[in-house]
Amino acid sequence: MEKYRIVLASASPRRKQLLAQIGLTFTVCPGEGEETLQKESPQQAVEKLSRQKAEEVFGRMPDSLVIGADTVVACDGNILGKPKSEEEACRMLSMLQGKKHEVYTGVTVVWPAAGRAEGQKFTFHECTQVEFYPMCAEEIAAYAATKEPMDKAGGYGIQGRCAAYIKGIAGDYNNVVGLPVGRLYQELHKRALV
Amino acid sequence: MEKYRIVLASASPRRKQLLAQIGLTFTVCPGEGEETLQKESPQQAVEKLSRQKAEEVFGRMPDSLVIGADTVVACDGNILGKPKSEEEACRMLSMLQGKKHEVYTGVTVVWPAAGRAEGQKFTFHECTQVEFYPMCAEEIAAYAATKEPMDKAGGYGIQGRCAAYIKGIAGDYNNVVGLPVGRLYQELHKRALV
Repeated sequence: MEKYRIVLASASPRRKQLLAQIGLTFTVCPGEGEETLQKESPQQAVEKLSRQKAEEVFGRMPDSLVIGADTVVACDGNILGKPKSEEEACRMLSMLQGKKHEVYTGVTVVWPAAGRAEGQKFTFHECTQVEFYPMCAEEIAAYAATKEPMDKAGGYGIQGRCAAYIKGIAGDYNNVVGLPVGRLYQELHKRALV
Repeated sequence: MEKYRIVLASASPRRKQLLAQIGLTFTVCPGEGEETLQKESPQQAVEKLSRQKAEEVFGRMPDSLVIGADTVVACDGNILGKPKSEEEACRMLSMLQGKKHEVYTGVTVVWPAAGRAEGQKFTFHECTQVEFYPMCAEEIAAYAATKEPMDKAGGYGIQGRCAAYIKGIAGDYNNVVGLPVGRLYQELHKRALV
C-alpha cells in the first residue's frame, strides 16, 4: 500500500510498536549518531535531533521514506533526558511528582526527490502536558527499583507501572510514549505519502 | 503484598491488561448481569453500572476485594455504547470525527467489612475529553472494516489503529481505554487497601 519503503530511524521498541499500531509496514534502522543536548529550547532540541537521525539514515537508504524522532521531558526549565543511574531516576521523579511538566517529541520525515540527493523533508514537534499525582520517597524508590525508568526520557514510562501515578495529560498520549502517530499519520496522509 | 484477594469483575482484556500494568495481582470474574443504559447522565450511568457489576461479583466472592467498571462515550448529548454492527460503528465514527467528545468510566470497589454482608464500598468516575482529527467516509469505512470498533464503547479503540485519528486528549488516557488505573491506585492506596 505504501508508496515508499518506510524506515523508522529509531532503536526504541515503543516507537516501533506505535508505528505498527496504526497499520504501517516498515523496517527499523537506528541512526548511529550521538544524541547530545545543547543550550536550546526543548522544541528546538527535539526537532534538530529528529532531523539528524532521519538525515543520517536517509543518507544510507536514499530510496526510502525515513522517519526520525526524539523525545525529551521539560520541567521547571530543565530538560530531562534518560537517567544514567537509579539515583538520577529518583532525582528526576522527585522533580516531577505532584505537578505538571511537558513532554516534547520532534519528528522528521525525509523521502526521495528527483535530482536532489538530500531528498525532501518536513519536521514538526508535539507537546503534551503530563500531571503526576504526589509520590512519597518510598514510592519513588520502589518505582526506580523496577528499572523501568532507565531507558526513558524523564525517568518514567507512562505506558508502564508509572500509570499508577499519572493524574492526566493534555495533548497526545503517544507523544509521551515517544511517537505522535496521530499527527505523523495526518502529515503523511496530506502529502499523499501513505 | 495485597491485603485482599483482588477480583476484577470484567471480561474486558484491556481492563485486565491495565490492572496488571500497575503491578497488582488479581483474578478475573466477569459479572453476569445485563448492561442496560437508561435515561440518566453518563456519569450516573457508569457509576451505577460499575456498582452493579462489583456488587454482583462480591455477592459470590465475599472474601475478596472486587473491582467493577463501566465505560461510555458521550457526544452531543448522546450516550454511545458498543456498536452492534459495522454500519452502527460507521455512524458513531461519523459523529465523533473532527471534534471533541467525552469518555466516562465509572469504578466501584467493594471489600469485606466485619459483620456487614454487603461489605464496604466506594464509587467514582473519571471523565476524559478526546479530540478526533477529521476522517473522510473512506477512512471511516476502512477503519470499521478492521472490526476493531466492534467491542468498544463509541466504536473506536484509542489504543489500536484509531490512534492515527486522535489529535489529543484532556484527562487520563487509561480512562478512555477502560480503567482509570491512576485514580484507582490512589483511591486504594489512601485507604491502605494496596
